[in-house]
Amino acid sequence: MSAVPATWMRGGTSKCWVFRRADLDVPGRTLDATLLGLFGSPDPRQLDGVGGATSTTSKAVILSPSHRPGIDVEYTFAQVGIDEAKVDWGSNCGNCSAVVAPFALRQGWVTPTGTTTRVRVLNTNTGQVMVQDVPTRDGVLDETPTTTIPGVAGPGPRVDLGFVSPAGRSTGALFPTGSPADTLVAADVSVTASLVDAGAPVVVVRATDLGITARETPAQLDARPDLLATLDAIRRAGAVAMGLAESPAAAERAVPKLALVAAPDAGELAAGADLVVRMLSMGRVHPALPITGSVALTLAARETGTVVSGLLPDASDPVDGLSMLTPAGLVTTTYSHEQGEPVVSAVRTYRRLVEGSIELPAVASATPERPRAIA
Amino acid sequence: MSAVPATWMRGGTSKCWVFRRADLDVPGRTLDATLLGLFGSPDPRQLDGVGGATSTTSKAVILSPSHRPGIDVEYTFAQVGIDEAKVDWGSNCGNCSAVVAPFALRQGWVTPTGTTTRVRVLNTNTGQVMVQDVPTRDGVLDETPTTTIPGVAGPGPRVDLGFVSPAGRSTGALFPTGSPADTLVAADVSVTASLVDAGAPVVVVRATDLGITARETPAQLDARPDLLATLDAIRRAGAVAMGLAESPAAAERAVPKLALVAAPDAGELAAGADLVVRMLSMGRVHPALPITGSVALTLAARETGTVVSGLLPDASDPVDGLSMLTPAGLVTTTYSHEQGEPVVSAVRTYRRLVEGSIELPAVASATPERPRAIA
Repeated sequence: MSAVPATWMRGGTSKCWVFRRADLDVPGRTLDATLLGLFGSPDPRQLDGVGGATSTTSKAVILSPSHRPGIDVEYTFAQVGIDEAKVDWGSNCGNCSAVVAPFALRQGWVTPTGTTTRVRVLNTNTGQVMVQDVPTRDGVLDETPTTTIPGVAGPGPRVDLGFVSPAGRSTGALFPTGSPADTLVAADVSVTASLVDAGAPVVVVRATDLGITARETPAQLDARPDLLATLDAIRRAGAVAMGLAESPAAAERAVPKLALVAAPDAGELAAGADLVVRMLSMGRVHPALPITGSVALTLAARETGTVVSGLLPDASDPVDGLSMLTPAGLVTTTYSHEQGEPVVSAVRTYRRLVEGSIELPAVASATPERPRAIA
Repeated sequence: MSAVPATWMRGGTSKCWVFRRADLDVPGRTLDATLLGLFGSPDPRQLDGVGGATSTTSKAVILSPSHRPGIDVEYTFAQVGIDEAKVDWGSNCGNCSAVVAPFALRQGWVTPTGTTTRVRVLNTNTGQVMVQDVPTRDGVLDETPTTTIPGVAGPGPRVDLGFVSPAGRSTGALFPTGSPADTLVAADVSVTASLVDAGAPVVVVRATDLGITARETPAQLDARPDLLATLDAIRRAGAVAMGLAESPAAAERAVPKLALVAAPDAGELAAGADLVVRMLSMGRVHPALPITGSVALTLAARETGTVVSGLLPDASDPVDGLSMLTPAGLVTTTYSHEQGEPVVSAVRTYRRLVEGSIELPAVASATPERPRAIA
């Protein structure tokens, strides 16, 4: 039995196991096999490993210092299968991204500068460059829990996550179909959708077109299998239209995501919301909002003719960012520029939960037994 | 922020965080507050801590070497609340018990002897003494994964868990009412029940008396709120009859447990089952069987006039133990004696998952913020 150094961290609303890339090199095992062994997969309860048996708690973050110009840290995200012996490398996780800068600073990969230190991160899954700002003090990371975010009960240290030039990372264009809105036909429904590639590919539809309000709780929507099946069919039709899959059946579970959006009512508007959102990820309604998906909605809000911009109240100003009302509360993004490139940013918090090492199980055979009598 | 040394272990079908008692002394905090902080409670997702957001993954095991005669290790179990800021100290967990001997040996609290080392454990929650046998080799714990148990996908090192003289630990008698079977009246139903105190207090009823078969999956039973409410009312009536609560409303959630039992059919009998069981713990149907509950059923099977013995097939022999068919498979206990005392034993496996330390969050106030523009 060998042990792999690891740090367990909350990043945003996810729980992520963080590894140095080199620590995952185990003789005689593939990286996928090593991760599955550490997480206790496949097993619906992940009893024999560190996985938490839900999609937001079966995530790995793999980091190494970078020698590329303008990049401090290379970051690879792995969605570790729970009941399947499969690791999904196809997408980034915006919430887990929040652990990258703090981890890199504590490893000494980046030298703190003043009261805020900027870390430049390359996500290798998507080619996305991020700029991450974290507070530093006296030459070290400042982990004072100053900030709260929707979906997290307690305060945490703040990370400003900026996605640099996020449009078209997966498909080459913000609107891979060339149009800000398309008609998708799937499962006997025909619906207007904006197919947006920024942060992550997202299929955006009006909630009212599906007979819902986008004020439902995740549990209420998850309890409607017929609705979920229709939404997944729309999502898969969108995957084909975006060039992400050859057929609906071939679409991945994780890509694209699907957003149900609605215009805020007077009270929601007064509370600061530009848009009401429920987002589906991995077949389920997200308890808050995937941060990568919020980037897509932010850019869609700035373009005329999209499902998003058509719903924005007159009072909202999508030029500087977007405030989205999620099941967990208001998530706000900012739109700005760095060195001439557009940047969409969001605030996340993190917490270091555990530092230690995970035992890697031996590949062994089983021999069930009866109890011996105690004598 | 301070860090608390901890080991994460699977014990049987539970995942348990294991602490040395002295490491949980944090200046200015109660033990309950420290555990709640480490586990991320109260929070239905336990996002900011090491709790797994289910009853079988929000458990702490607190250990210290013992100076009592005949006892090597003192073991206290804590069920850490998830959405409640409450730690339940009222019961033991048989599955978590399986980590005690391996942890004690690795700490050097017990000296290995030959190929099997016996560790004598006092559970302080219940006053229950356990004898635990683990394989040792060359003077150290042997963690070769040799054994499988129902409800755990992979093999693990074996622990034989013996409950010494388990009858009457909570109430003073195996049958606290003085009778092997009683009639309980609750929620408009009247049902025959055996009220058994061994391992843990358990209310045992025939599944057929409630219109079910005990072959239902946990999910099928958990999806019937009316049935669960009736079963909980019976359980609470049993708590009063056993002298564990002054009124049904005052009964604890964790104590007593409720067992639904049925006679095996021909096929189940041929597979080795003496009894078919579904057990409720903390308001939900257990995915396998709480080991403490299996001790109660084992002693009930040996006594004439109980609900259990009335269902045993002629071919079964409860004198040496009991084989119970659970949702996860067959769980078998053994009945024997040690130094003249009766011992009920079961086989569990364990796995060390993580060794390290848990960051204890500061008690801080929150200040929500908007993202800054990246510039």
